[in-house]
Formats: sequence, C-alpha cells, structure tokens
Amino acid sequence: MRQSELFTKTLKDDPKDEVSVNAKLLTRGGFVYKNSAGVYTFLPLGWRVIQKIAQIIREEMNAIGGVELFMPALVEKKYLDASGRWDVPIGFDVKGKKEKNPGFALGWTHEEVLTEIASKYVSSYQDLPFAAYQFQTKFRNEPRAKSGLLRGREFMMKDLYSFHESEEDLSRYYEEVKKAYLKIINRCGLKAIYTTAAGGDFTVSNTHEFQVEAEAGEDEVILCRLCNFAENKEISKEKAGGKCPKCKAGVLEKINAIEVGNIFPLGTKYSEAFNLKFKEKSGESKYVVMGSYGIGVGRVMGTIVEVWNDEKGIVWPDSVAPADVHLLMIGGQEKELQKAADDTYNKLVKAGVDVLYDDRGTSAGEKLFDADLIGIPLRVVISEKTMVQEKVEVKERSKKEVKLMKVEELIKSLK
Amino acid sequence: MRQSELFTKTLKDDPKDEVSVNAKLLTRGGFVYKNSAGVYTFLPLGWRVIQKIAQIIREEMNAIGGVELFMPALVEKKYLDASGRWDVPIGFDVKGKKEKNPGFALGWTHEEVLTEIASKYVSSYQDLPFAAYQFQTKFRNEPRAKSGLLRGREFMMKDLYSFHESEEDLSRYYEEVKKAYLKIINRCGLKAIYTTAAGGDFTVSNTHEFQVEAEAGEDEVILCRLCNFAENKEISKEKAGGKCPKCKAGVLEKINAIEVGNIFPLGTKYSEAFNLKFKEKSGESKYVVMGSYGIGVGRVMGTIVEVWNDEKGIVWPDSVAPADVHLLMIGGQEKELQKAADDTYNKLVKAGVDVLYDDRGTSAGEKLFDADLIGIPLRVVISEKTMVQEKVEVKERSKKEVKLMKVEELIKSLK
Repeated sequence: MRQSELFTKTLKDDPKDEVSVNAKLLTRGGFVYKNSAGVYTFLPLGWRVIQKIAQIIREEMNAIGGVELFMPALVEKKYLDASGRWDVPIGFDVKGKKEKNPGFALGWTHEEVLTEIASKYVSSYQDLPFAAYQFQTKFRNEPRAKSGLLRGREFMMKDLYSFHESEEDLSRYYEEVKKAYLKIINRCGLKAIYTTAAGGDFTVSNTHEFQVEAEAGEDEVILCRLCNFAENKEISKEKAGGKCPKCKAGVLEKINAIEVGNIFPLGTKYSEAFNLKFKEKSGESKYVVMGSYGIGVGRVMGTIVEVWNDEKGIVWPDSVAPADVHLLMIGGQEKELQKAADDTYNKLVKAGVDVLYDDRGTSAGEKLFDADLIGIPLRVVISEKTMVQEKVEVKERSKKEVKLMKVEELIKSLK
Repeated sequence: MRQSELFTKTLKDDPKDEVSVNAKLLTRGGFVYKNSAGVYTFLPLGWRVIQKIAQIIREEMNAIGGVELFMPALVEKKYLDASGRWDVPIGFDVKGKKEKNPGFALGWTHEEVLTEIASKYVSSYQDLPFAAYQFQTKFRNEPRAKSGLLRGREFMMKDLYSFHESEEDLSRYYEEVKKAYLKIINRCGLKAIYTTAAGGDFTVSNTHEFQVEAEAGEDEVILCRLCNFAENKEISKEKAGGKCPKCKAGVLEKINAIEVGNIFPLGTKYSEAFNLKFKEKSGESKYVVMGSYGIGVGRVMGTIVEVWNDEKGIVWPDSVAPADVHLLMIGGQEKELQKAADDTYNKLVKAGVDVLYDDRGTSAGEKLFDADLIGIPLRVVISEKTMVQEKVEVKERSKKEVKLMKVEELIKSLK
C-alpha cells in the first residue's frame, strides 16, 4: 500500500482528550479515530491490525472445531427477558423514532440468542457436542470509557459458545479452548497469565481470565512467577508477599494486568431458560451443558500497544503488524530515485511481501519520525546513498543497527 | 467441512412466517435463522456465502483504489444534527438504561462520520482524491420487513465514499465505481441493469441504481432491452409499450427488479455541514466534492436465491457457493465405504477443493434431497456401486446428467 493513498496522517502531538498510552499512540499513528467516548473508527492501518488479529483467532477457533456464524446486534427483548438480563445497567436500549418503549437491546454477549437458535436444531445426543463462534461488534454502556481500546462502549469481540452432553465433556472442551486462547495470545506477541476469577452471575464454578501484565491494567492479579498460580485479587484469599499456596516455594506478587479474554462454564443456566434439551442414548431427556468464551479483538490490539512501545512509538510484533516492511524513499524528487524506489516496491510486492510504501514528498526527518511512530517491524530506506551501491538500508524497529543489503537478499531473509 | 459438525439442519417444510422465496429457501437450507422481523442470523453455511460475496466486493474496491476501514455503528447525535438527519423515520435511537434522551443513533449510512473524520486530515489538493470503504452492519427501522434478506432492519452493507477536488473528478471516479459495481454483480452470477433514479434528499443530480430483474423485486424499472436504457418508474416519463427515447428503436417494458446497489453524487452537502475544505494550488479554499456508493451484501445473497432456484432448492453460482463440492457418502455404515469416503474427502481438501462432506448416518433419499436444497454446484456421490469401480458419481446441480469418474479426474477438472 502506498502511503500517499492513505487519507490519514500522523499527528505530532498527543491528543488532548486521551490519557491511555494505547489511545495516544494509536491516534498519533493514524490507526484509530475517536468519534465519541469509547467509540472509535479503525482507520486503514488500524483495520489491518484488527484483521490480522482476527485471522489468528479464526485459525485457532477452526482448529478446535468451531464453526463461524454471525448473529444480529439487535437482540429482541424476549431473549433477555427469558434470561433475566434485560435490565442490566451496561445494556443499551434501542427504539424506533415513534416507539414509546425499546423493543431491542444492543447485544453485549450472545448466550441467549445462540441458545434459542440451538434449541431449534438440537434434539439428540448425536447433535452434540458442537461449538460456534463469531466476530462481532458488541456494545456496553461503560460509565468510564477512558482507556482507549481497553474499555470501549462499542468494540469487536470474538465470542465462542459450546454445547455438551455433560459437565465432563464441557471440561474436556474448556481445556481445549484454554490451550487455543494461550496460543492465540502468544501468536499476538503477548504472554497470558491464566487467572482464576469469580463465578459471575451465571455460574457456580469459577471462571478464568487471560490476563496480560501491564501497568495500564485495571485488574489486579495475585501471581506466583514460579508456578504460575494466579488469582484475580477480587477473589483471592492470598496477599502479595505471602508464600504461594500451590507450589509452597514462590513469593506472591500483586501485579496490574489487562484481561484480554475470559472463559465461562455456564452449566445449564441458558439451556434451562430456552428449554434446550437433548435425548440421551437411554432416551432420557436432559438439559444441554454450555460454555462461553470471549476475546476482545480491539482490546488485544490495545494491549499489544501498551506492552510494545518505546519513546518513539509503537513496536508491532511481526504477526499483527499493519505491514511487514515500511519502505521509505528518502531524498529529493529526482526521477531516478523515484524509479528505483518504485522498482523496489514492485519487487517486494511481487515477492508477496506486505509493504507500506512512504512515497510522499515529505522530508527525511518526517518520514523517519513517522516510521518509528507507526512501528512496522522492518524499515527499509532507499536514498541516493544506498542507490549508488544498488542496495537498500534495512533496520529492525526494535534494534539500533542498520544493514545495507540488496533487495534480493532482503526478500530471501523474509521467507 | 463435515456436515456432522454443523449444528444446523435442513427443514422439510417452508417456515410459516416467511413469504419470500429467498427467506423460505435460505431458512429450509440452514443458511439463515430469523431472530426477529427483518433480523437474521447467518448460520455457518450462510456466513460462508456472505464472506464469498464480501471478498469479491473487496477485490473490486481495492482495484479502484479504495482503502478499507471500519466505522462505528453508534453515531452520536452531533453528527446527524449537523446534517439534519437525526429525525429521519428509519433511524433507530440508542440510549443507556438510565438516560432520558438518546445520545446515539444506529448508523444506517456513514456520510456524516467519514466527512467529519476527513475534515481532520484533509487540507490541501494534494490530499485528494481518495476513497474509503467498509463492510458493516447497518440498521434501518423498516416498517415492512417481509422480504427476507431483501429488506432487513439489520443488514450488512459495503459502503464506499469518495472525496474530490471538483465535480469533474467525481464524475471520472463515479464511472470507475459504476464499472466496478457491474463487475461485482456479474461475478456474483447476476446481471445488473444500470438505472437512472431520483436525486434523493442530498443531491440535485440523478442517482443510479443497480437493478436485478426478478419477480420478487419491489422496484419497477422502465427498460429498453435493445440499448439498455433504464429508468426507475418513480421518475420516468416513459411508459411500457412506448418507443425507447434513447435508441428510438426498442419497445419499452416495465419490469420488476431488486435494487442491489446504488451510487450517489453528493456534491458538497456533507463537506459544507462538516466544513471539509481544501486549498487549491492557487491557494483558494474550496469545499470537497463527494460521492457515496452502497451495495447490500445480504441483499445480493437474497437476490441470488430469488434468481437461482428451482423446484428442488437453491442453485448457487460457483463464485458464491458455500462450497465447491458437496460430497455425499451413500449407503450403509460399512467401514470400507466410510474409509473410501473419508479418503475422497481428504484428497479433495488436500487439492484445495472447498468441500461440504455429508458424513451423516442418514438415508440416501434424505442426503440427495438436502443436496438439491442446499444447492452446491457439484454433487459427488460415493457409494458401494461407485466404489467397486474406484470412481465417484458426479452431477452438476444445474444439470441432469450424471458421470462416473476417478477422483483424480474430478480434481483435474476443477482446476
């Protein structure tokens, strides 16, 4: 992609209305635009990151047998009345211009909708187990939406729901999802702490969170770095400085963390509400046992920025970067240099490299400054100086050293 | 994909609450599920079709220089106040549980949001032209949502907006989009009639619609089949039976049609509302000239079903089918047959063929009935009879003849 075709621009100064690191850097880099508190547009560069994260999640969901579907955002009152969740304070009401009472809520999670759908198709043990997921914009009326992508009122989530014959089968699948989530978060360049948390409204068992250590995190986790024992402080009986109750060796710490995902054993709460039953082999009729599993796609993006940045800007992990290579043409507007830069761009694209090409007529200083801010893993400069040697200058965003190499060598090194 | 992993099932009977052909067939085939009037879930098979249509659109939008982004569904009141569209009857209001007055509408189109964003980045003629698009769920409070995917209250749309220095440059791009739209609709297996329509609220010029001839169409078009003159009946001065005013040779017909896309020259209406100006080379300050262009992704899907069906079910065009091949294992539960069917499935998948594999333990009749209903272009049967010949039985959904061939031959023929 040519940078001149992007309509967005980087900003020199931090936006005045943002306090979080992720919102500041993502706004300055031209990744997001704030339309309202907690409501963001994903600009072209930002949307590329979201799509890369979503693709990683999709691959891992498919690998554990999830089938993708797409449910509506408009959730009719009857669904939430059935589960008793119509009146939760984070819900947004929707009504037509001339209607007196709202007929819909904006879905903030979709247990009700999918359980009702499942009740139309599931009748026998042969129909179980199955798991279905979607990527969807969710809505929550958050009173404090000040953390950029970490806590939005509108945000993209991947939500997976699983349906089982028994608690045992749910437990088996819960472990599979746990592994898939750890893999996803790892592939996104983050390290997840698997944390035991409160049971929440709809389950007696504990739920589990995938927490990423970060100063900006609103959650507090009691952690043993030796054996990975971790409990959300809200439920933990342990204290920082104490001995780990699991390995009896480590010393517990209290850390700040961002919850990027969570998984819930739901039991039969929703299958009872929607009469989702199945016939066992024996003929006995039973309620389906369910689990639900969420990852905030935008929140993963915000967390990556919170963790991967330096004083100059963002330092994207390869797997989720908006491009593999940031190609900068540096120097005057000489035709020869422009041609060499265009040729290099075409060669890279032809070799299947995802390139952001800074072909703008701006100064060297501005281009280098922007490249650091935008944070693409590999910066490739072509200038008069490199051109006479028929080479390009290559620098990793996370390192200081600079190398001169032929484009062919660069392409080879990327494979 | 194995059919046994889908949690959905086909239905024997038409749903009682649907009148349109597309809703009946898509519901029976397990492509969609109606949650509320005009509000549908795309089940796994249906979501595959949506993704294929979206990918065709994406490729053609990128080919004309569009950059993809993603704007919010929550559109704050200030945006629609600025353009005077807060009170339009099709708008849905959104409010928090404890709020008295709605602070947001659900976006049914995004001229306001993108114009405001553009006003933060565009300052010079050098920043123009550009075009940005998104795939997004839109919301319209339709009073009569009875046509399945043809008229939803919640529906997926691709909306593109373009920004220009002058009316001339807009006209140039408008022609490019027109060609891209005709190509998209053609690639989806449909034939578009480029139709002149009313100017609408926000433009003095005419707008243009992409109409597809279909009995179920709610629009009426005055058409000359000789020279493709076409006007929406709402604005046409011509009558059916009259002579074509353009070629002076054809006889005009009045046909029913479905509007799958439309394009609007917007002039400076929104750039004036959001003070989106740019400096010309001469230094003069001018309002940006805009265009907007929409295609209903779900509506394209519904239209395809209205056009491509027979008494047995849907007949998907290759380009948008939920899979290339529907592989049916027919016969008993013999291990040898199961193994042969599994082998065939694995061979096809390995060769990059997109297969729906009916591995269920149901009867031959049921499987053949379902295959016709679901409508995948190629049906491949493996049974005791074909197995002894080391072949499979291949039938195109749209034809009657049946061929026996080796799997290797089949794979070759698909390339």
